[in-house]
Amino acid sequence: MDGSHRCSANYVPLTPISFLERSAAVYGDRISLVYGRVQYTWRDTLQRCTRLASALVRTGIARGDVVAALVPNIPAMYELHFAVPMAGAVLCSLNTRHDAAMVSTLLSHSEAKIIVVDYQLEHIVTGAIKAMSERKEKLPRVVIIQEYDQPPSRIDRPGSALEYLEFESFLASGKLNFEIRRPRDELDPIALNYTSGTTSRPKGVIFSHRGAYLNSLSAVLLNDMCSLPVYLWTVPMFHCNGWCLTWGVAAQSGTNICQRNVTAKEIFDNISLHKVTHMGGAPTVSNMIINAPISEQKPLPREVTMMSGGAPPPSHVLYKLKALGFRIVHSYGLTETYGPATVCSWKPEWDSLPQDKQAKLNSRQGLQHIGLEAADVKDPVTMESVPADGKTMGEVMLRGNTVMSGYLKDLKATREAFNGGWFRSGDLGVKHPDGYIELKDRSKDIIISGGENISTIEVESVLFSHPSVLDAAVVGRPDDHWGETPCAFVKLKDGCSATEGEIIKFCREHLPHYMAPRSVVFRDLPKTSTGKTQKFILKKEAKAMGSLPKRVSKL
Amino acid sequence: MDGSHRCSANYVPLTPISFLERSAAVYGDRISLVYGRVQYTWRDTLQRCTRLASALVRTGIARGDVVAALVPNIPAMYELHFAVPMAGAVLCSLNTRHDAAMVSTLLSHSEAKIIVVDYQLEHIVTGAIKAMSERKEKLPRVVIIQEYDQPPSRIDRPGSALEYLEFESFLASGKLNFEIRRPRDELDPIALNYTSGTTSRPKGVIFSHRGAYLNSLSAVLLNDMCSLPVYLWTVPMFHCNGWCLTWGVAAQSGTNICQRNVTAKEIFDNISLHKVTHMGGAPTVSNMIINAPISEQKPLPREVTMMSGGAPPPSHVLYKLKALGFRIVHSYGLTETYGPATVCSWKPEWDSLPQDKQAKLNSRQGLQHIGLEAADVKDPVTMESVPADGKTMGEVMLRGNTVMSGYLKDLKATREAFNGGWFRSGDLGVKHPDGYIELKDRSKDIIISGGENISTIEVESVLFSHPSVLDAAVVGRPDDHWGETPCAFVKLKDGCSATEGEIIKFCREHLPHYMAPRSVVFRDLPKTSTGKTQKFILKKEAKAMGSLPKRVSKL
Repeated sequence: MDGSHRCSANYVPLTPISFLERSAAVYGDRISLVYGRVQYTWRDTLQRCTRLASALVRTGIARGDVVAALVPNIPAMYELHFAVPMAGAVLCSLNTRHDAAMVSTLLSHSEAKIIVVDYQLEHIVTGAIKAMSERKEKLPRVVIIQEYDQPPSRIDRPGSALEYLEFESFLASGKLNFEIRRPRDELDPIALNYTSGTTSRPKGVIFSHRGAYLNSLSAVLLNDMCSLPVYLWTVPMFHCNGWCLTWGVAAQSGTNICQRNVTAKEIFDNISLHKVTHMGGAPTVSNMIINAPISEQKPLPREVTMMSGGAPPPSHVLYKLKALGFRIVHSYGLTETYGPATVCSWKPEWDSLPQDKQAKLNSRQGLQHIGLEAADVKDPVTMESVPADGKTMGEVMLRGNTVMSGYLKDLKATREAFNGGWFRSGDLGVKHPDGYIELKDRSKDIIISGGENISTIEVESVLFSHPSVLDAAVVGRPDDHWGETPCAFVKLKDGCSATEGEIIKFCREHLPHYMAPRSVVFRDLPKTSTGKTQKFILKKEAKAMGSLPKRVSKL
Repeated sequence: MDGSHRCSANYVPLTPISFLERSAAVYGDRISLVYGRVQYTWRDTLQRCTRLASALVRTGIARGDVVAALVPNIPAMYELHFAVPMAGAVLCSLNTRHDAAMVSTLLSHSEAKIIVVDYQLEHIVTGAIKAMSERKEKLPRVVIIQEYDQPPSRIDRPGSALEYLEFESFLASGKLNFEIRRPRDELDPIALNYTSGTTSRPKGVIFSHRGAYLNSLSAVLLNDMCSLPVYLWTVPMFHCNGWCLTWGVAAQSGTNICQRNVTAKEIFDNISLHKVTHMGGAPTVSNMIINAPISEQKPLPREVTMMSGGAPPPSHVLYKLKALGFRIVHSYGLTETYGPATVCSWKPEWDSLPQDKQAKLNSRQGLQHIGLEAADVKDPVTMESVPADGKTMGEVMLRGNTVMSGYLKDLKATREAFNGGWFRSGDLGVKHPDGYIELKDRSKDIIISGGENISTIEVESVLFSHPSVLDAAVVGRPDDHWGETPCAFVKLKDGCSATEGEIIKFCREHLPHYMAPRSVVFRDLPKTSTGKTQKFILKKEAKAMGSLPKRVSKL
């Protein structure tokens, strides 16, 4: 419009860096990070991140360079989430459960110039660098984080051709008057997150400053996270940057409670000591909480909002968490959507429903959060929306500013994922009459038996309601007659027992006959570090088992 | 980064239209608007806005056209905030206290194609159009809103060359399957707001979709407005689009309680009936509340968060509101910053301070909200920040995405306002050691007496603490010796009395001698519709009074 003029007074690229600067200005004296006896204020955090950014630049980090991190939920990991972008670089947080081979693959693929590693994980990086060295690849520099109660010391690695830096000394070498490198364009990359491998081929998901800014605010809003929250870190910060709450907690000038390890005891202790207001709850965490021995439990000093994500929580889990004093915000998303994308927004009229009905309604994935433009269930071929009948299955598709920029060095995969102008999640779901989406399965996990679709999630939900079952997963087992039949992998609770026949019988009482498992294997389930069951491993096993003998399949 | 691909799956221009669509999808059955016995749900509101947008387009509204509104806080005004942008047009909300001459000036300047007017204000528009007609200008179409309890009827205006449309019939002529015109670029204009005239020359401030989106979320966050708020409309929606909460309430799927007139009785009645959670409090509103007769007061069913803005509230007002059960969020901004720009973020350590100290701290303007990049106090010539000493005065300057695009058809004024890369507010203030900004005066209002700066706000604050004073304003009166001396205009409370001498004496007991008024005039104060005192009128009066006689100025 005539009279408009775009300049620095009225236009700034959106970036989470602004959140940190604002918290330091407004709430400089408030505690930003707690890790055991270590505490920092927001002023400290801005200063430390500025020095760290400066140190990165002094060591040669240029705009767009990748800085990798193999670090658990300790303050350094939080600081890297700001310092790396403040150096104009891209943070690549690696899964702390990766082995040396995987880390070497990801360091090569991302072309990381530096890797910051926690002392407990140094051997992984050493192994990765050895492998890269054998492949004659360019090697990243290594910065090692020592334990916090130790004074910074020189790191000698005799025999290594590489220079190893110590994190605190490295940080201290940076300047406080460093001029923060803001993004030139808000679509510039801020982070690179490799998908955590429910499949075996990881892809590098690119996050932009704009998307990170908007998804952080969305995560804040969907949790009704008021200013000055106290956030307990149970979700790994390497996982979609802690579902964007690394940045989101800074937006609300909150206090981050860090834990190196996630145990029920530490969770209850920290909630009690720091009066935690919010936390995340991947399935492993919620299971840990509801199954914690009484001796480790402590009453919550106030209601704790738990953003549940990672996999649809079974109703009985939601129910038990609520009884303990947790308010569950059920959110759904993928690495490709910066973590949380949809939320099962609670409706006040549900308050008066029976608990099991409430849990059932709240175990749905809901609809787009405020930063996402749209969430829908569509026919993947025609792109038509499915009817909102709670029955017709389609692919969950998402669209908006909080969808990734693309897959690093894989434009073909990017284009496929965005084919039709929506991000195709690969998840199958239905749309209920109230518009809320419910996930039924990963498209690659669904079992087709005698022409019928079987949602493994529905079968698992019944298995979880069995009193002896601690964990369960269902995959297809080849069958000469039906094509596939459901095969359940089950882990029983300590001290409980059940036979294959009992489990099958229980399922047949609660499911249509064709959906009930025909075979049950008792074992520990293979997990990703974020608590997702690695079904591709179980599928291989089920495949190796071959078709069921005729007499069993006629049961 | 290699692999990135921008497309509709991952990029959508930011616009508040998304808030409405999301509320209709997630909370379609919840009440969006209440006006007496009239109620709409979010589904209704989306449908009505879609029809209205369609009707606008059918009548010839093109992208970028201006649609004006002269409408009080009734549902139609709320709907226009979405429907006009959904037609790709720009909403120009006019101050309902403007006279016909001013409205004709603004209709001409904005080149509005349509004006929507409330039946009670039709005569203003008739007068405006008559004036435009005499100037042989192109005339806008007129859409008249009738009272809600009346059935839509044909509007005949015999003798008029213009076609007058009735709002409900006009809306009904629109199509539900209308394809919403989203902004092509998020910097496209969404609204045009003429500054409300503490000076006499109004300027047309251009808001963009991006700025409106971000300031709406900022207003939500600075008020700690959780999902499903109940918002009482006391701030005129024409004033910076209701401080962006027209859009903000939709972002949180809240319920808007509309009032045609703002009276203490209606405020208390609505709070009690609808369990209001949030409201705005311009100075007129807070004064109305604290001075309401006991018979009109009702106990608040729960704490009500009141965003106070428009002018720095005197400590005793903050104090009394708190006692009544209001939580005061003190925010500051200008039309050029979409309304709220800074907020006096409350610090938990203030809770334990004495009430008057709390009120004093909270009457400061604070620092930038989350959507604004920076707020600072600077020397307007050197652009250096003033020291944070609570004493050195400078100009309050603001920078970020929630600063206007510019002044319509006045690039020169835009460039001046943005000179130096910051928006120059024209307000003078200081920076306290904790970084918080405190406003001292409008730069054009400050009194310079014998070379000393006198903050009229400080003098007014003392006047307000006098038990008999209801309202007060201080301006400079010419003085042969001192240049200027403070002259107080005072309105006493009903049934109270005080003499000029008593007021001056009271001020000298609480202020340095040179800051105390030398003359006092008892009268009603001229106000803008948003409750700001029109000092330019008082200045004229003080000027006309001439220099004080010598004997008085030696007192």
